[in-house]
Amino acid sequence: MTDNGHKIRFRDAQIEMAHGAGGKASRRLIEGLIAPALGGPLLDVLGDAALLEIGGSRLAFTADSYVVRPLRFPGGSIGDLAVNGTVNDLAVSGARPVALVVTLILEAGLSTEVLEMELRAIASAAHNAGVTVVGGDTKVVEHGMADGMYVTTAGIGLVDSRLTCSPASVRAGDKILVSGPIGDHGITILLARGEIDLEASLCSDTRSVLPMIDAMIGAAGAGIRWMRDPTRGGIASALNELARDARVAIAISEEAVPVREQVRGACELLGLEPMHIACEGQFLAVVAAEHADRALAAVRGAPGGEEAAIIGEVRADPASTVLSFSAYGGTRVVDMLVGDPLPRIC
Amino acid sequence: MTDNGHKIRFRDAQIEMAHGAGGKASRRLIEGLIAPALGGPLLDVLGDAALLEIGGSRLAFTADSYVVRPLRFPGGSIGDLAVNGTVNDLAVSGARPVALVVTLILEAGLSTEVLEMELRAIASAAHNAGVTVVGGDTKVVEHGMADGMYVTTAGIGLVDSRLTCSPASVRAGDKILVSGPIGDHGITILLARGEIDLEASLCSDTRSVLPMIDAMIGAAGAGIRWMRDPTRGGIASALNELARDARVAIAISEEAVPVREQVRGACELLGLEPMHIACEGQFLAVVAAEHADRALAAVRGAPGGEEAAIIGEVRADPASTVLSFSAYGGTRVVDMLVGDPLPRIC
Repeated sequence: MTDNGHKIRFRDAQIEMAHGAGGKASRRLIEGLIAPALGGPLLDVLGDAALLEIGGSRLAFTADSYVVRPLRFPGGSIGDLAVNGTVNDLAVSGARPVALVVTLILEAGLSTEVLEMELRAIASAAHNAGVTVVGGDTKVVEHGMADGMYVTTAGIGLVDSRLTCSPASVRAGDKILVSGPIGDHGITILLARGEIDLEASLCSDTRSVLPMIDAMIGAAGAGIRWMRDPTRGGIASALNELARDARVAIAISEEAVPVREQVRGACELLGLEPMHIACEGQFLAVVAAEHADRALAAVRGAPGGEEAAIIGEVRADPASTVLSFSAYGGTRVVDMLVGDPLPRIC
Repeated sequence: MTDNGHKIRFRDAQIEMAHGAGGKASRRLIEGLIAPALGGPLLDVLGDAALLEIGGSRLAFTADSYVVRPLRFPGGSIGDLAVNGTVNDLAVSGARPVALVVTLILEAGLSTEVLEMELRAIASAAHNAGVTVVGGDTKVVEHGMADGMYVTTAGIGLVDSRLTCSPASVRAGDKILVSGPIGDHGITILLARGEIDLEASLCSDTRSVLPMIDAMIGAAGAGIRWMRDPTRGGIASALNELARDARVAIAISEEAVPVREQVRGACELLGLEPMHIACEGQFLAVVAAEHADRALAAVRGAPGGEEAAIIGEVRADPASTVLSFSAYGGTRVVDMLVGDPLPRIC
């Protein structure tokens, strides 16, 4: 609720696109308006899933709405995203997904063919992630009151008892691991809209990160201090939130961060920072230094984790800051995303 | 998946408003397209909540999206509906709500004041229902891509071990109980739009039905065979689904059904059937005959249940049919809602 000890207040008179982008404006909306209004002792609107004790079990519970445009893009579609996004929120909360409920808001006039493709995408993504769709709800709004379809998925998972992930567990000296190249999803969506005169053979990374996290938990167990899936706002926003919540510094080695040439090229052309671009099939983890090599080897050995890397480490100072160090001697502060250069990417 | 033994197929080329109305077209969409595509052994897209065994506990899990227009109306708002609707889905599944997650789809340009009012409505409805909001998600779409705001609430509840509600438990001779006057919500929304030249002092019934159901469970326990909250499609659609699923007849005493004068008047003017109009704060229950008086007395003794009534009974024949008997000697078949006379009521 506080940033450097100051209470955040939401002073904007109306909602703008940037409030949904996952960066500073989103954080102001959530911390300055939504959390104070809804806030109970258990409220966790910033973490990936809420943790609950129910009948002796430790459960993770999460829901996300998906409004991506276009509905289909290279590498996936809104149906894939809606399942994988919620599965990944549970996975980075240390939970094994058990059940999903899917709700649809359909725009009148949506073709049945499009709906059917997305239902199949949902079913197939759920099957791949080993989670069951147990229920749903469908609403229809007039033509012009939505953009084809919006999907919301809620998920329950059982928390792995070997883990105690939290910003409070993070210590100076811990290593930062990323599961693969960043920014593929955001740049793919941008290009799929055809508004920019740029072509690249790039696919969204939308997928379940469970196999990689499973492997990492098996190898590093309680050595894993924190996990997050860097979606809106990219790894820069996720790491800034961690730096702030844990009151630590995050030091990134610029050249260690895996970024595909196509993503780097598009970012340079468009003046974007790759660390601000959303991933939908990667995760970040903070791992105790003595477990880092084992964790990295495990993720690299899991399907899809071949390009995982240790990209930096946690330091004590300067607290609440993310710094990027270049091998060529440069140092820069990596801030959270400001504005919304890539609206409606998920 | 079958109606009179025939497989339902969804043959419409595109989605229309009627597919969201909760009547026959909705059922065709769900049973002919959504359920077959998503269907697993646990899928329950028609019941109010899915029941799960997790770590030794019996949980109910549900999610619903809310797209009501206008956002505020006499007696409530989208925020109230979103909480009460999900709380009631859990309550009629025999579960005590434990936690909610709320996701928002906001239209760029929405005034902060409107958003703040709805957040307060959500918080207050959750407080009244004794359930905690544990998480959330916010997306923003461009102006013109939503209608102010859409809200989705997912809920988890702990199932009351005294209950074994299911259509399979329903027997000829059981009584049908309704908790109060029907149709208040649907007609209130219709009038709130100002499109019809009709005035009436009517309020939505949006509220948590938990106190009434708690009282009824205390009085009738395992004598309760089935419960449902009759939202879209009204009590006619809910009872038709029961008649079909349980392969029984439902005999309604026309004059026993509580309907306010304003609702009856509006329905007569507009050619609507009160039994097709949505409630958002009532429930239907099937209770074993020997427990029916106790159940009714308990609901009537609970706050808001004063106008509860026994409105009919279950019969063996004609199976899969709802019949309404008038004291004046008339008998008519009460079918499910066809078309969508009242779009976007929840």
